[in-house]
Amino acid sequence: MITPTPTPIPTRAPETQSLAHERSLLGLAETGVSRIRHLLARARELRPVALGEAPPAPTLRGKTIATVFFEGSTRTRTSFTIAAQRMGASAVDLSAAGSSLSKGESMTDTARNVEAMGVHALVVRAAQAGAAATIHGAVSCSVVNAGDGRHEHPTQGLLDIATISEAFGRDAEFDLSGLHVAIVGDVVSSRVARSAVAGLTKLGARVVLVGPAHLAPKGLACLAPGVAVEHDLDIVLPEMDAVMMLRIQFERHGEGPEKKAGPIASVRAYREQCGLTEARAARMKPGAVVMHPGPINRGVEMDGPVADGFCGPRSLVLRQVSWGVAVRAAVLADCLGG
Amino acid sequence: MITPTPTPIPTRAPETQSLAHERSLLGLAETGVSRIRHLLARARELRPVALGEAPPAPTLRGKTIATVFFEGSTRTRTSFTIAAQRMGASAVDLSAAGSSLSKGESMTDTARNVEAMGVHALVVRAAQAGAAATIHGAVSCSVVNAGDGRHEHPTQGLLDIATISEAFGRDAEFDLSGLHVAIVGDVVSSRVARSAVAGLTKLGARVVLVGPAHLAPKGLACLAPGVAVEHDLDIVLPEMDAVMMLRIQFERHGEGPEKKAGPIASVRAYREQCGLTEARAARMKPGAVVMHPGPINRGVEMDGPVADGFCGPRSLVLRQVSWGVAVRAAVLADCLGG
Amino acid sequence: MITPTPTPIPTRAPETQSLAHERSLLGLAETGVSRIRHLLARARELRPVALGEAPPAPTLRGKTIATVFFEGSTRTRTSFTIAAQRMGASAVDLSAAGSSLSKGESMTDTARNVEAMGVHALVVRAAQAGAAATIHGAVSCSVVNAGDGRHEHPTQGLLDIATISEAFGRDAEFDLSGLHVAIVGDVVSSRVARSAVAGLTKLGARVVLVGPAHLAPKGLACLAPGVAVEHDLDIVLPEMDAVMMLRIQFERHGEGPEKKAGPIASVRAYREQCGLTEARAARMKPGAVVMHPGPINRGVEMDGPVADGFCGPRSLVLRQVSWGVAVRAAVLADCLGG
Repeated sequence: MITPTPTPIPTRAPETQSLAHERSLLGLAETGVSRIRHLLARARELRPVALGEAPPAPTLRGKTIATVFFEGSTRTRTSFTIAAQRMGASAVDLSAAGSSLSKGESMTDTARNVEAMGVHALVVRAAQAGAAATIHGAVSCSVVNAGDGRHEHPTQGLLDIATISEAFGRDAEFDLSGLHVAIVGDVVSSRVARSAVAGLTKLGARVVLVGPAHLAPKGLACLAPGVAVEHDLDIVLPEMDAVMMLRIQFERHGEGPEKKAGPIASVRAYREQCGLTEARAARMKPGAVVMHPGPINRGVEMDGPVADGFCGPRSLVLRQVSWGVAVRAAVLADCLGG
Repeated sequence: MITPTPTPIPTRAPETQSLAHERSLLGLAETGVSRIRHLLARARELRPVALGEAPPAPTLRGKTIATVFFEGSTRTRTSFTIAAQRMGASAVDLSAAGSSLSKGESMTDTARNVEAMGVHALVVRAAQAGAAATIHGAVSCSVVNAGDGRHEHPTQGLLDIATISEAFGRDAEFDLSGLHVAIVGDVVSSRVARSAVAGLTKLGARVVLVGPAHLAPKGLACLAPGVAVEHDLDIVLPEMDAVMMLRIQFERHGEGPEKKAGPIASVRAYREQCGLTEARAARMKPGAVVMHPGPINRGVEMDGPVADGFCGPRSLVLRQVSWGVAVRAAVLADCLGG
Repeated sequence: MITPTPTPIPTRAPETQSLAHERSLLGLAETGVSRIRHLLARARELRPVALGEAPPAPTLRGKTIATVFFEGSTRTRTSFTIAAQRMGASAVDLSAAGSSLSKGESMTDTARNVEAMGVHALVVRAAQAGAAATIHGAVSCSVVNAGDGRHEHPTQGLLDIATISEAFGRDAEFDLSGLHVAIVGDVVSSRVARSAVAGLTKLGARVVLVGPAHLAPKGLACLAPGVAVEHDLDIVLPEMDAVMMLRIQFERHGEGPEKKAGPIASVRAYREQCGLTEARAARMKPGAVVMHPGPINRGVEMDGPVADGFCGPRSLVLRQVSWGVAVRAAVLADCLGG
């Protein structure tokens, strides 16, 4: 059975959280709205540098960033690497395959070792919720959470917000009040959803989580004030300004009923209930936008022509990728005091 | 059965090819002779920088190159990476293992995503003929083909030509007229052969493709004007100025008869028919040279002492590797307008 | 059966060794004491730069270092990469997975190819004792041994010495006379032990190798003048200034009796005989220190609280990691004449 309750996350004591905020980014739920707005403004400002449209900045010259991914993700790792390089930092990669992990070392031992090499920031991804916080508690250098299990993926949340803000002309103040955003699909398994919910609601957007009951249980409404949960996408869709489709996280479903039903049956049913098909996209309101954190299962959670913006609303999928680099440059610069 | 006909390749419409030539390099068959000469001259000029004998150049400062290899090749990837770094660019690597590919994303989706991160050039390798052209059609940034199935490997072709030109003192004008070059072995499976044939013939060399009928079918004579196909290496060898041995591409033979015969029987027969043995090397004409794209199956397509230049003609195998970096520096500089 | 005799190592002729010492580092056994002291002094001087506490140095600008690891080690590779970058060099990585190795190429062919790309130093790790020397004999560029089978791991030896020297205030002259150092555990399989023994004894320390007879055979006393071998850790421990615990090298034991006994039984017996437990640590003399090359099998060769310095003597485990980067910066600078 897929658990309908959010995974409990180890937290740091309140008095240490403010310090953590100065040099790390573990999740948007624990990040104040002023720091969120500051990071978004910095991303907007750094965007030309981060994307290679302006010369690299010397901001982080002499700093070394390590990507320590205990769970594979070439794309997110590359996004952080490019961001670091464009800000003048060096980047080294420690991936799980062939790493000390296979020699039985714990995550915190690995992290402490990398820090001892003079690394200034650890960018961490792991399959366990709370992994980034655990590592943060074990080291003195900066830690950026690049995804920890079903918990958070805060730079993804920030890039989603940056993309929506730009699309609706809210990128001067990053005030999203009045905007309706749906997050659709496999919400319960999604750290992307958790980070987006935290960030979007703090900036004033109204968020609806959409999916069948086992993927979007009513209990998720407690994630943040003003979050609604709906099971019928067709009812919700016409009211939305932005629709964020989630990727099915087959790999996080474990022994769930989906698996037992067989992947084909499941995929077809999923598309029928939650997929942003061409037909559904056509019923969205004028000016609405569609998003996806990638990589897209085309024809499952989103039809190809919708992803490519060939039909229905504007697709911001690639714009999200670009904002990803800008947001990561901003986060690294902020954490490292550059 | 190994197919005796060259693989058909998706091509771009004629009116877009000239633009492609400005910013990309997909194959030598479609590249004009003046651009080929220009790239070779640039490689000659950049060689000391590319090989670390002169200080790095600032030519590509601020540019980011991504190696996107859907098919493994540490060597070619490293050669491109060193070339990029020496020209002042940053390089990031996205390899297939652990990449989004394993999450079911298409090559063009991956390429569009990498481009959206602000990458200026994609260096692409894939198992499918035409993959680089497909990706080129999907993005706006530069694309350099680092090998696509049995189609082309244009920087390999350029480095082969640079090596021959240097060895025969033709590197002022890159006019190869009067030179006889044999390409020997598993021609039908070889993108290296296709790129070399295209480039060598455009510069005036006479090319003979040599191998047994199933590896060098007569139909390959249509690859370029003036190409001959022969089945008997011993007849051809004494007339050649340069002999380019090909690597057996076991991995591309699929269900071929070679496989059924068992690897040992096959390898022994291959060496007898197509191998550049010590005995054969001794019968080459004075001043002739031998080449191989690497990695060499020593004792199969080429005897170790021949590869090392310890017997018979001069071996240019490592000189090819060095020219590889210089050629790639030239191609990146040319594509990125540096 | 685990072989009780040290593995024989291919050596270079005496007249070529002095040249080797100018540009390479293959092992501490063959390195003169003056060069060892010079490298340690340079590491001390470069430490702030190497660890990112001072701005990067331009010493190796324009140089390219290649890590060529035929045996996986993310940590050591990363340490060399950071060291190279901080000294201003570029670093490229060629790992075994997906490399030409899987296409059947020999180590020396791979090394010659990488050199031909204009790489100035090869940092080599391999499972075969003598691999670095073999490669050194095949190329003209610098070679740094980053571990070759059971033979040597000279930068590990240097970082161990740098750490001990600092802890006991011997880092002005690097004279270790009067210090007693135990190297404990799986000595016979350990290249770390061999390099440490060579270096420590040359600088005047007295070294005791400790372990049960099959892991620390009496014959190991011949490794260097003045080396003792003991089987009972509890007798040795109270006299020691520094205790270097070794990692169990399960992967190098092959068909040994340990394996037949099953891993759990073996691990428990190992800890009882050779483990630096909390109880044992409490019996060490005041001012003594404990070390481990990492990654630690916590609760096997060393209890967690001992590794973390929470009980008993001072733990220098992370200090070793930091000195690793400084030592590698010094070695690269020395080999490349910067």
